[in-house]
Amino acid sequence: MDYRKKLIVEPGTKIKLRDIDPAFHGKHATHEAALTDLQKEVARLTQLQYLLYAEKKHALLIVLQGIDAAGKDGTCWHVLTAMNPQGTTVTGFKQPSEEERAHDFLWRINRHTPALGQVGVFNRSHYEDVLVVRVHKLVPREVWSRRYTQINDFETRLVDHGTTIIKFFLYISPEEQLERFRQRLEDPHRQWKISDADYKERAYWDQYIAAYEDMLQKCSTSYAPWYVIPSNHKWFRNLAVSRIIADTLEDLGMKMPKPTVDLETIRQQYHAAATTASI
Amino acid sequence: MDYRKKLIVEPGTKIKLRDIDPAFHGKHATHEAALTDLQKEVARLTQLQYLLYAEKKHALLIVLQGIDAAGKDGTCWHVLTAMNPQGTTVTGFKQPSEEERAHDFLWRINRHTPALGQVGVFNRSHYEDVLVVRVHKLVPREVWSRRYTQINDFETRLVDHGTTIIKFFLYISPEEQLERFRQRLEDPHRQWKISDADYKERAYWDQYIAAYEDMLQKCSTSYAPWYVIPSNHKWFRNLAVSRIIADTLEDLGMKMPKPTVDLETIRQQYHAAATTASI
Repeated sequence: MDYRKKLIVEPGTKIKLRDIDPAFHGKHATHEAALTDLQKEVARLTQLQYLLYAEKKHALLIVLQGIDAAGKDGTCWHVLTAMNPQGTTVTGFKQPSEEERAHDFLWRINRHTPALGQVGVFNRSHYEDVLVVRVHKLVPREVWSRRYTQINDFETRLVDHGTTIIKFFLYISPEEQLERFRQRLEDPHRQWKISDADYKERAYWDQYIAAYEDMLQKCSTSYAPWYVIPSNHKWFRNLAVSRIIADTLEDLGMKMPKPTVDLETIRQQYHAAATTASI
Repeated sequence: MDYRKKLIVEPGTKIKLRDIDPAFHGKHATHEAALTDLQKEVARLTQLQYLLYAEKKHALLIVLQGIDAAGKDGTCWHVLTAMNPQGTTVTGFKQPSEEERAHDFLWRINRHTPALGQVGVFNRSHYEDVLVVRVHKLVPREVWSRRYTQINDFETRLVDHGTTIIKFFLYISPEEQLERFRQRLEDPHRQWKISDADYKERAYWDQYIAAYEDMLQKCSTSYAPWYVIPSNHKWFRNLAVSRIIADTLEDLGMKMPKPTVDLETIRQQYHAAATTASI
């Protein structure tokens, strides 16, 4: 299935998240049934990232957003273990530091955009400035409401430089979030992560959904589309995300660069070295 | 086998690389025979990095040096696929930029040291400033010869902050390097990487060995030891490196941090949320 067609937010359209089933899982019924496809996508990602790294004509920026426990960390790990770590960077954007707050909201983001040949993953991003910032009224409406255009302008600049931008909104149901909180609560290895705010934020669910819907409508563009990934099933989320990335990279028509040296000359150097007893 | 004991450069001792067999491979005869042990070390690394990330009391800096084709990239990949990419960064240090050259040699290095909770891998490092810089006489002897002390002072500061430093010199024979060049020459996916300098650098082999030996003697310290890793066999190199890292991390006695919240209160919040029909 072409998940790009199925899961894209068509530029300019208003979507209602309640019309999307966060438990959607495509044709496979279980993780086990999807394993072969998952491995296939991982292999494609490995090969395509190598091409991107070698060719150095494109950069790839992957943006991950989603409510707490939606699976941003897990998605990062899944996508990046397919790739050579030398060509990738993950940046997690938390509450801005004092220095970051003293600059415009895109200043800290701009410093972490991937260079040509590189893959950058943003675990949370500049979109927090129209999400948590809006929901908790950290800046007035006239400030955050101008940011959609500012974000689109910023992303246009990145695209003009050769960056491919793919944005994933990981969508889970409130029941699934609650279940994941419960698992965390009973897992001694993850209890340290639990914050008092986890449950308090749930009271803002509807406001978050409204903010997500506006973000998706206003910032899904032809050059930097948003995809809504049904994420109740982690394995489906991983499959959809990796296939969308692989399909997008494949469309770039990247080619292995030609050798910068004359291979015949190098072969002669090799034979000269190989026939020298001592080196 | 305790590879730390076997492969460490004892602080203050002068080592002769020619006394070390780059084809050493421990008790296993083949890659297949070593697979179980390799997987065991990967699992240890995964668990220990999670602890480091959770506890945030230590940072880990891994320094990789070695002649061209010694396997620095492959080692990076092997070690880092065991770890959550959110807690890791690889920095490749190439020829310094104009801005970097306008600063002291540790300026660019310092910007990439890992924060507490993070793992940083340096693919080449500040040691290039006593290696290639020395061999090709890019600065006078009185400049590079002072750098050993400056490096030790710098590393002391990192260690004082909570950084564990492990330095690996990946050691291959000239014959093995030649064989790897040959493979690269015949592999269409890697021909683009071939540089005219590859063979020219081989003429400096002995000078490099002398520079490596000085670096190992002067900068293997109790707080930031160098290990010489026999690297003709890639699988042995991976096994030795990952075991040394895991053993070193284990000695830190890291503990999962305690929850910052009262779990009973959170459980009540969970039950309150779970019994609310709508959210």
